[in-house]
Amino acid sequence: MTTTPAALVDSLRSIVGAPYVLSDASDTASFNHEWRGLYEGKSFAVARPETTQQVSEIVKLCAQTQTPIVPQGGNTGLVGGQVSADSRSLIVSLSRMNKIRSLVGEGFSMVAEAGVTVQAAQEAAEKVNRLFALSLGSEGSCQIGGTVSTNAGGMNALLYGMMRSQVFGLEVVLAGGQIWNGLKLLRKDNSGYDLKQLFIGAEGTLGIVTAASMKLFPLPEVVETAFIAVPNMEAALALTGLLQDRFPQQLSRCELIPELGLQMVIAHIAGARRPLKTVSPWYVVIELVAGKGAELREPLNQCLAAGLEQGIITDATIADSGQQRKDFWHLRETLPEAQREEGGSIKLDISLPLKCVPDFFKRAEAIIERLCSGARPVPFGHLGDGNIHYDICQPPGMDKQAFLNRWDEIADPLHAIVLEDGGSIAAEHGIGVLKVKKIAKTKAPLEIELMKKIKAALDPQNIMNPGKIIDS
Amino acid sequence: MTTTPAALVDSLRSIVGAPYVLSDASDTASFNHEWRGLYEGKSFAVARPETTQQVSEIVKLCAQTQTPIVPQGGNTGLVGGQVSADSRSLIVSLSRMNKIRSLVGEGFSMVAEAGVTVQAAQEAAEKVNRLFALSLGSEGSCQIGGTVSTNAGGMNALLYGMMRSQVFGLEVVLAGGQIWNGLKLLRKDNSGYDLKQLFIGAEGTLGIVTAASMKLFPLPEVVETAFIAVPNMEAALALTGLLQDRFPQQLSRCELIPELGLQMVIAHIAGARRPLKTVSPWYVVIELVAGKGAELREPLNQCLAAGLEQGIITDATIADSGQQRKDFWHLRETLPEAQREEGGSIKLDISLPLKCVPDFFKRAEAIIERLCSGARPVPFGHLGDGNIHYDICQPPGMDKQAFLNRWDEIADPLHAIVLEDGGSIAAEHGIGVLKVKKIAKTKAPLEIELMKKIKAALDPQNIMNPGKIIDS
Repeated sequence: MTTTPAALVDSLRSIVGAPYVLSDASDTASFNHEWRGLYEGKSFAVARPETTQQVSEIVKLCAQTQTPIVPQGGNTGLVGGQVSADSRSLIVSLSRMNKIRSLVGEGFSMVAEAGVTVQAAQEAAEKVNRLFALSLGSEGSCQIGGTVSTNAGGMNALLYGMMRSQVFGLEVVLAGGQIWNGLKLLRKDNSGYDLKQLFIGAEGTLGIVTAASMKLFPLPEVVETAFIAVPNMEAALALTGLLQDRFPQQLSRCELIPELGLQMVIAHIAGARRPLKTVSPWYVVIELVAGKGAELREPLNQCLAAGLEQGIITDATIADSGQQRKDFWHLRETLPEAQREEGGSIKLDISLPLKCVPDFFKRAEAIIERLCSGARPVPFGHLGDGNIHYDICQPPGMDKQAFLNRWDEIADPLHAIVLEDGGSIAAEHGIGVLKVKKIAKTKAPLEIELMKKIKAALDPQNIMNPGKIIDS
Repeated sequence: MTTTPAALVDSLRSIVGAPYVLSDASDTASFNHEWRGLYEGKSFAVARPETTQQVSEIVKLCAQTQTPIVPQGGNTGLVGGQVSADSRSLIVSLSRMNKIRSLVGEGFSMVAEAGVTVQAAQEAAEKVNRLFALSLGSEGSCQIGGTVSTNAGGMNALLYGMMRSQVFGLEVVLAGGQIWNGLKLLRKDNSGYDLKQLFIGAEGTLGIVTAASMKLFPLPEVVETAFIAVPNMEAALALTGLLQDRFPQQLSRCELIPELGLQMVIAHIAGARRPLKTVSPWYVVIELVAGKGAELREPLNQCLAAGLEQGIITDATIADSGQQRKDFWHLRETLPEAQREEGGSIKLDISLPLKCVPDFFKRAEAIIERLCSGARPVPFGHLGDGNIHYDICQPPGMDKQAFLNRWDEIADPLHAIVLEDGGSIAAEHGIGVLKVKKIAKTKAPLEIELMKKIKAALDPQNIMNPGKIIDS
């Protein structure tokens, strides 16, 4: 069955109601626009369903008319997965599906629809004295459906795991429009293939996630945060090991900030101040959590003293108030923003076996200097789990676009080392369109073949976010 | 290509060497025999490869000859997944693939072949001061490949997760004989579909797991174990909540023992003694873990005192030595053995949303009494994550087989309540053949259809452990 865009819009309106199908360019613009301006979507319309049933009917209509579907959450993705250059495609925005269907404090669980923002989920959990553990820079905007579909990571993943670990079950509209209700609230269920795993991290290419049942944790009542100066990356790793050994299951965050990054934050972010007098090539910001009545301050002090003695720490300070804790994290969280003020950045989202990190940094620096003298590496992020945001700021004074045009030329040799080391070139941001060709080239052909088999089995018409993850 | 069993045996011998292909009934007997005698396998031969390459060649041969393959690890499964009634089938035993390929203490990781026993993995990790967290009653015999393929649970799953949570990556021989090397050592990798998830818990129906890269944890240096009497199941749940709140990320075990179960252990297990003078309908055995120098005893004492005051605890004792700790756990671990001395048991492996547990127990007791007066429920196990081994001992004096013949009649109405409550009727032991028809009947047809699509996509000839998980 073929149809015209106008006829499709009419049919969509009869499903979700006229106000919730946008087809004027002025209305669709904000959905087609990727927030950094790196990708410009051309979808002819946006449908904004409010119920799973409506999503199902939309997908059935798209299946009948072979209309490509781009599911969209908070439109905060970093790899272009949320928009499409195909003008025949329809954006299905889940943002109106924003109900928390259930919240059980004593059962440590929550069922939230795809359009609930991560922040709304966190706040709802906190009201019943629970923690929804996912925490991202974009948490005010990004949504449950999107974070499930991209298996989002963030700072708390070190202790609590990525989004995959938060999910008990899913409700998904499949490529044929059928509704799969897998919203279990169980910590253990070996009753067949664990189907939810297919949809987590699939970037909407196998179905549309419409709701998730998720795990909550006890709200930590004791929190200690420290800002620590380390002399080099080997010391940073040794510190990580020391903290893991001493505080297994309590080290919730372990983030790396380079001196250059700190300088950028101090220069560009209002009110940002150095937490330490010591200037050091690297800093590590860490957080420990525990339940009511636990004592972490003294053990942390002892641990830091041991680190000083061993020479793996040169200076450190522990936050003395909630405000100071926020200030420490503000330095880390505003780093990308500060970096933007310095011009264009080539951004690598890599993970490495931890022991490979120091050597990678050395080799990467040499390559960058050779290829583009004056370009400034600003590696930062989730040191604890080996996930580094290896950003490269343009040389001062260089034309921004001229620098960004060299993205692949500079990224490729660094990615090659990452792969050689057994690392990942898409650690937490996913594939989208940004890395789809790269993945097709660098993954083992057998792995690509397996991925294509899964895709063909679940979406034989290739209408679910085509061109994302799998090159088509 | 068709062939005779004799020709197949010859070809297999040329792959793995003559001594490692067993075809005499006397040699294959121990592999075909399920340890409890509930299933008798009829596989015509057993191949015992030593390398992944050999597994690959075996599978290629089986694919060419349409020979069904039954992958077998320690042969400790509880649902008959490790044997086959099909006399054309070949058992591929992975027990000779027992090398630990790498072990990195500072990287908290291990790569082990499928035939490494869980205990060997634990011991190897301990040598580098690390914890391999999976812990099962059968850990001396069960193997990594089998525990991956069944997504094994066990007592530590409460804190550390099931086997799925321990796996960074897998090496798998696919149904066509291709070797997929997915042995990454990364905590974060969103570079496409997470293919390992397909094979974890698939019971060998999608491929043969030949090795796994796995997560290690810091070895806990402070451990506190308590044996606690609670007046009723509502109190047991309240205690669980209290402990979770007070010791988030430190409560590693939370196990239920009923008074009747304790009586059986005291009666049948040499040296078993009651830890408390108080006789109570239910006991909860818990364990807390932490890093070096942490203080758990006093906080635990305070927590138990609070429980006493609230009336959710009637008595409790904390283990004062390693020996006493072992004694407490011995009571829990020998419960199934003690139960065997009381005759036949109908065993349900269920999980429920925690809040549903007390009411389920009440309803189940009434049903059992009505159907088979005198039969004795002995619900025990992983209370913390809602996974109860709901065993029903035969009425004293009844013929064992006569009782076991009533398995479905008694289990079915209990399973119906579990499903009504949103629970699982296969929480950690899997499907195998025991529950394959039950799953086909009780799961949503759409879910069965999805499972069949995955199976057809990865094993179109249906040679990988056919008849397990998916009814064929």
